[in-house]
Amino acid sequence: MLDSFFNPKKVVVIGASRTKGKIGNVIFENLLHKFSEICVNPKAEKILGKRCYPSILDVKEKVDLAVIATPAKTVPGILKECGEKSIKNIIIVSAGFKEVGNLKLMTELKKIIKKYSLNVIGPNCLGVFDAYSGLDTMFMLKERLHRPKKGDISLISQSGALGAMILDLASRKHLGFSKFVSYGNAVDVNETDILEYLGKDPKTKVICIYAEQIKDGQRFIKVARKIKKPIIFLKGGVTSAGKFAAASHTGSLAGEGEIYSGVLRQAGCIQVENIDELFILAEAFDKVKHLPKGNRVQVITNGGGYGINAADLLEKAGMKLIKPSKSCVNTLKKEFPLIVGLSNPMDLLGDSTNKRYDQAIKACAKDKNNDLLLVLVLTQVPLIDEKLADVIYSDTKKKPLIAVVTGTGLAEKISKKLKEKGMPCYEQINDAVTAIKGLVRPKG
Amino acid sequence: MLDSFFNPKKVVVIGASRTKGKIGNVIFENLLHKFSEICVNPKAEKILGKRCYPSILDVKEKVDLAVIATPAKTVPGILKECGEKSIKNIIIVSAGFKEVGNLKLMTELKKIIKKYSLNVIGPNCLGVFDAYSGLDTMFMLKERLHRPKKGDISLISQSGALGAMILDLASRKHLGFSKFVSYGNAVDVNETDILEYLGKDPKTKVICIYAEQIKDGQRFIKVARKIKKPIIFLKGGVTSAGKFAAASHTGSLAGEGEIYSGVLRQAGCIQVENIDELFILAEAFDKVKHLPKGNRVQVITNGGGYGINAADLLEKAGMKLIKPSKSCVNTLKKEFPLIVGLSNPMDLLGDSTNKRYDQAIKACAKDKNNDLLLVLVLTQVPLIDEKLADVIYSDTKKKPLIAVVTGTGLAEKISKKLKEKGMPCYEQINDAVTAIKGLVRPKG
Repeated sequence: MLDSFFNPKKVVVIGASRTKGKIGNVIFENLLHKFSEICVNPKAEKILGKRCYPSILDVKEKVDLAVIATPAKTVPGILKECGEKSIKNIIIVSAGFKEVGNLKLMTELKKIIKKYSLNVIGPNCLGVFDAYSGLDTMFMLKERLHRPKKGDISLISQSGALGAMILDLASRKHLGFSKFVSYGNAVDVNETDILEYLGKDPKTKVICIYAEQIKDGQRFIKVARKIKKPIIFLKGGVTSAGKFAAASHTGSLAGEGEIYSGVLRQAGCIQVENIDELFILAEAFDKVKHLPKGNRVQVITNGGGYGINAADLLEKAGMKLIKPSKSCVNTLKKEFPLIVGLSNPMDLLGDSTNKRYDQAIKACAKDKNNDLLLVLVLTQVPLIDEKLADVIYSDTKKKPLIAVVTGTGLAEKISKKLKEKGMPCYEQINDAVTAIKGLVRPKG
Repeated sequence: MLDSFFNPKKVVVIGASRTKGKIGNVIFENLLHKFSEICVNPKAEKILGKRCYPSILDVKEKVDLAVIATPAKTVPGILKECGEKSIKNIIIVSAGFKEVGNLKLMTELKKIIKKYSLNVIGPNCLGVFDAYSGLDTMFMLKERLHRPKKGDISLISQSGALGAMILDLASRKHLGFSKFVSYGNAVDVNETDILEYLGKDPKTKVICIYAEQIKDGQRFIKVARKIKKPIIFLKGGVTSAGKFAAASHTGSLAGEGEIYSGVLRQAGCIQVENIDELFILAEAFDKVKHLPKGNRVQVITNGGGYGINAADLLEKAGMKLIKPSKSCVNTLKKEFPLIVGLSNPMDLLGDSTNKRYDQAIKACAKDKNNDLLLVLVLTQVPLIDEKLADVIYSDTKKKPLIAVVTGTGLAEKISKKLKEKGMPCYEQINDAVTAIKGLVRPKG
């Protein structure tokens, strides 16, 4: 049912514009060639070289998806015409509905949707981005909003601007995305409908949601619990100041923060507090090869103080640091200088080499006293180099491994290499600990 | 007394080396020309073109500072010779003392220090970096450890590696540093001595400390309370896992985390949990022109969801969001389209221009209903540009202002410009809220 929103054969843009940079122009240009040669605007004859129709009713071809970008008051009439023309899937980009208190217009839309059995995303939204099909109804220019590469993360966002910013940052963070839906006022299709669709989508491995409101908590819980993929949820409006702001943003009644936390817990979702956490967990779940079986973390470091900070943050996050087993220690004793601390954290010291990391990771990966390795690398020291990325990567087959590589220059090179190989890698320990906490957390 | 550690006229490097990349070679090269033409190594005749002396006793010139980088067991003898030669200030870089349980050697050093009334930093440390005088005893190569530019932040670190990493990252974060002291095992000069010195240093505005141990809590409190500069403290070993690790790192008895938190509170320090927080607060205190007089924050945003997240995080952090005053609203009503939300958060919407930000900031800066402005900018939208940096900066004279600029490309340009102008600017709201919480916090 929702598939035509992501993989339509033919799209019409209603309210297409001749003026470069205008919403109706950007959308039509983004869809041109692959999805849409058809545009509607009663005031124009041609847009971007294509014939422009005065109304959708003048279009003869079969159309799967309509994108409406006209003033709010014209939308009900246009939606009705879409119904007459048997276009079932419609994205209404136009603003000026619930978010400005225009509830009458919302009611009108609902009636038309019911009458013609339409599926409508919006109004007041950016619509849909699909990295695989190439469908892109976002009206932000590509030089301002960089689209992320293809990948496994999908995002549902009630807020268009917040969703757009996440996609834009993802492009820089080397994170791959699959689908993005900005659903705005949700006159019809809501967060749970999209969640259900993404739950079955073979190209989605991790689902992220930003929402100020869940329309039907019981249904949300039911749908979410069936999904075996991680669902990372940023709830907007959890405090009184936030709730007040939400009311004027999308017209949402954001409800009590604690009640929502309860719903999200029951639904098996991972609730995050901010965008950083959302990115950290999306990256962790997207990239880690195996989920850890328990909360025992072995820290490997080349900086003593950094290892101590890791130990502090891990213990605070509920993780355990158990000493490496005798056999692990005995193996490494033969290979390492006496001064190396074969404990937890394991301090390979400032004169550590790639080889010493290799030996430590190999031995600790085999050790039954841990469930997960946290490998810290400070790159200010002389004897490690870029090849350390291969060393860390080659040893990740057996145990989940999270890397932290901190510094300028060399650190950025190692980190980029690890991320490209598809490995969770952070610049700071606290981010890695946030990731580990999320990965270790028992599912609902 | 400690001044010769930062501004010596003549430095000798004892244990200088001919081998490129070795500790004694890197240090001598860093000090050459400006501070040190004198090196000691009984096995070499010349190092880096300079005559090499078999012993410090063979040097005729007056020397202010000696840097010792020889094997641990040779250090007491050399220290004694420094005493004979009347060199009062000495940095012992060499490792292999307390951190490996070699307490006997520590006791020997203490006796010699007492006998000759020496000031000793170390052993097991990186020593000193002074961005103004250029003194630099850090044995990490400059291509691995980028030195930060001149500025107002100083750092005291028990851990050399952790301190080095902070300096390295600071170079990328456009943060300016004044002095850095890595004091290691602290056989003589300790964290409180250096703190006292930096408290009086006119080139230090913000003091950061990483320590696993405070030697004398009472004296620390007394010294810290006298200092009117912000002191940001990262304590290593606050959990049992961290304490265990600290014992083998610098031989510290890290003590109970809660006791330390009490000491730091009494001392008026701001305790942070991780390196990110340390950077966020150092930047905030370094760059903010005025400290906020209260906890009332006015949020200005061009993204509704982002404003809501800010409201949530601010309220959780104990801040208040009061509606703008009538006169503020009336001023802006005349200038803005009806749909702009003149509340708190103030949502300037996705079609906001530089001018709209200018008007909003100017009006809110005058408003008596807030103590601080938090200005959020999402750069995915079409109508703002790089000049927004000037707009934000020009309006910061009256009220403290924290900026959050989020995105790729344009965001990075605006953000860099703001930072260069000396303005606190973060990429994510949660970082800005951490900064605000630190700034608003009442001093001890």
